[in-house]
Amino acid sequence: MPKIANGPLDEIIHPQARLAIMAFLNGIEGASFTTLRDALEISDGNLSGHLRRLQEADYIVVSKSFIERKPNTFVSITKKGQKAFADYLASLEKLLAKN
Amino acid sequence: MPKIANGPLDEIIHPQARLAIMAFLNGIEGASFTTLRDALEISDGNLSGHLRRLQEADYIVVSKSFIERKPNTFVSITKKGQKAFADYLASLEKLLAKN
Repeated sequence: MPKIANGPLDEIIHPQARLAIMAFLNGIEGASFTTLRDALEISDGNLSGHLRRLQEADYIVVSKSFIERKPNTFVSITKKGQKAFADYLASLEKLLAKN
Repeated sequence: MPKIANGPLDEIIHPQARLAIMAFLNGIEGASFTTLRDALEISDGNLSGHLRRLQEADYIVVSKSFIERKPNTFVSITKKGQKAFADYLASLEKLLAKN
């Protein structure tokens, strides 16, 4: 049975924008800010806010550099983020399972 | 790719308490308020609020009766709720899929 108190979903990951970000980053080396924004079709401000939240939890790392004098922001999932995402999927599966 | 704008998850269903309620009710005739509360391990007030939200969307019906003079609240998923839940699961799968 889906006992919320016993097997809660990680609320850092659950909001759908962050879930999409984590799903996107999981299993790849990383992605630029613009790639993420275009893939997820959300605003810069919205994406920034969600990335900040994931970064605070150490689920992702954000590195800034310059490519041909243009600022480039690269986002990668961390080992801790990979573990948290795997745990989230396992909890989700349990919550969705019948009985 | 998980495009949030194109395939958004139903925000009436997505919050984890409501997701658990819908998963619990889907495929069964229904459940009493107390069965739901005990299965999900949430407070009466919390459960009431989430049921109200699902009821407003016509995803569930709540019927009140008396069993041996005690009030009994019975909750069932509607056809619209079943369809919304199936759509939610399909969107979730798409969001979680790689590319």
